[in-house]
Amino acid sequence: MMKEKLTVVKVGGKIVEDATALSQFIGRFASLEGKKVLIHGGGRTATDVAARLGIETRMVEGRRVTDDQMLRVVTMVYAGLVNKNVVAQLAAAGLCAVGLTGADMNVVRAHRRPVKQVDYGWVGDVDSVDGQRLAALIDSGITPIMAPLTHDGCGHILNTNADTIAAEVAKALAAHFDVTLTYCFELPGVMRDPADPTSIVRHIDSTTFERLKAEGIVTGGMLPKLENCLAAVANGVGRVVITCADSLGTDSGTTICPAINA
Amino acid sequence: MMKEKLTVVKVGGKIVEDATALSQFIGRFASLEGKKVLIHGGGRTATDVAARLGIETRMVEGRRVTDDQMLRVVTMVYAGLVNKNVVAQLAAAGLCAVGLTGADMNVVRAHRRPVKQVDYGWVGDVDSVDGQRLAALIDSGITPIMAPLTHDGCGHILNTNADTIAAEVAKALAAHFDVTLTYCFELPGVMRDPADPTSIVRHIDSTTFERLKAEGIVTGGMLPKLENCLAAVANGVGRVVITCADSLGTDSGTTICPAINA
Repeated sequence: MMKEKLTVVKVGGKIVEDATALSQFIGRFASLEGKKVLIHGGGRTATDVAARLGIETRMVEGRRVTDDQMLRVVTMVYAGLVNKNVVAQLAAAGLCAVGLTGADMNVVRAHRRPVKQVDYGWVGDVDSVDGQRLAALIDSGITPIMAPLTHDGCGHILNTNADTIAAEVAKALAAHFDVTLTYCFELPGVMRDPADPTSIVRHIDSTTFERLKAEGIVTGGMLPKLENCLAAVANGVGRVVITCADSLGTDSGTTICPAINA
Repeated sequence: MMKEKLTVVKVGGKIVEDATALSQFIGRFASLEGKKVLIHGGGRTATDVAARLGIETRMVEGRRVTDDQMLRVVTMVYAGLVNKNVVAQLAAAGLCAVGLTGADMNVVRAHRRPVKQVDYGWVGDVDSVDGQRLAALIDSGITPIMAPLTHDGCGHILNTNADTIAAEVAKALAAHFDVTLTYCFELPGVMRDPADPTSIVRHIDSTTFERLKAEGIVTGGMLPKLENCLAAVANGVGRVVITCADSLGTDSGTTICPAINA
């Protein structure tokens, strides 16, 4: 049986924290055809609210160290301020949306990251996503809007990377839908030359990824990002699209697909 | 056909903002038999967070004046901090809970209160509750945990009194369930003599209410509170119980019932 199409979109804080960019994004997301899920960030607002509360933000390798105070801030900002503004604006655009953290309906269970070199505090690594519950919600006409927070099942909220939640949610929903996972990125896609907008790499699979890596076109932070995308398509996700928020719903950007002989 | 029982509980900020009181309350709420809904407050934390952000709290007749800045605070505190802590702790207690504002799934629509003597700002008066949507959620085994926020359908979150939301939700769900609406109160119930814990008035209907009013036993803020309770039972709610949070799930407190000859 052909599965129904579902788009899982991840959008960063930069878009959802800016009133103009958000309202443009809402329009594009609302007019995406078919069923969909949104995972949003909110880090910049969290840093700003923390600063106004006299709480210092500490990042290690791009991840927020989340002590008791910072957990309160990210819970307020991600699940409250950012999430509910997105939900209310999507409602105004005619969508029946529901804002969720991983604790809501127990949809994303995680465990606190073990302390190695760094104690990240209340940061969670995902254990499981309840794809069945999310699919039932989506099938009833509701669009889940997910904040980058999970829970440990013992009463603690955990701060979890939004890219990771998006990939885990997409994988869990791949059992129920033909899933496209779209990362809204600052650039229009993976580029051979970041200065040249026409140099977008249109398709990547595990073979071309190795070639791009060897050629030095994919480096630094893009390496783990693309490895995660390849892992998603190896785990049932139909395709991962990397594009900029302005191009959501168009055909542009980079598509990561399963290897043809996979 | 006999309707299934449903308990709608309203609990104030004082309980859910105190770690010890909250964990005791969670235990009692989780062990309430049957289907249930929780509406919570959070005003004290909002006032505290606002103060730490340098935002002054202005109350008029017990209601919070909600300008742009205060709306951000209450959205963070009610929908984020308070709501998600309750949801995560209920999950730990084995409940499948979902935190909702009125914007989520469009469950509570409101309009901004018109300016008369006072401009309350982003304060909403309830227009409608989607009882069907809430009932479907509850029937699927989920416990809604509602923050005192609604929306206007045009993209704005509105700050709405938790007691009012509780009454409106109870009325909307009365079409689907045999509803008991329980207000967790600071006192053990309506009392003939506040200093005497044995003086609880066990039952009130519209006739006894008039008598209590004439005797001067019910005065001040309790008058509109009880009028709202009587309006709820006149609009399909089976009974309203006023009790203290410690007694939730027991038989104590004051029960407001429809008049026998209604």
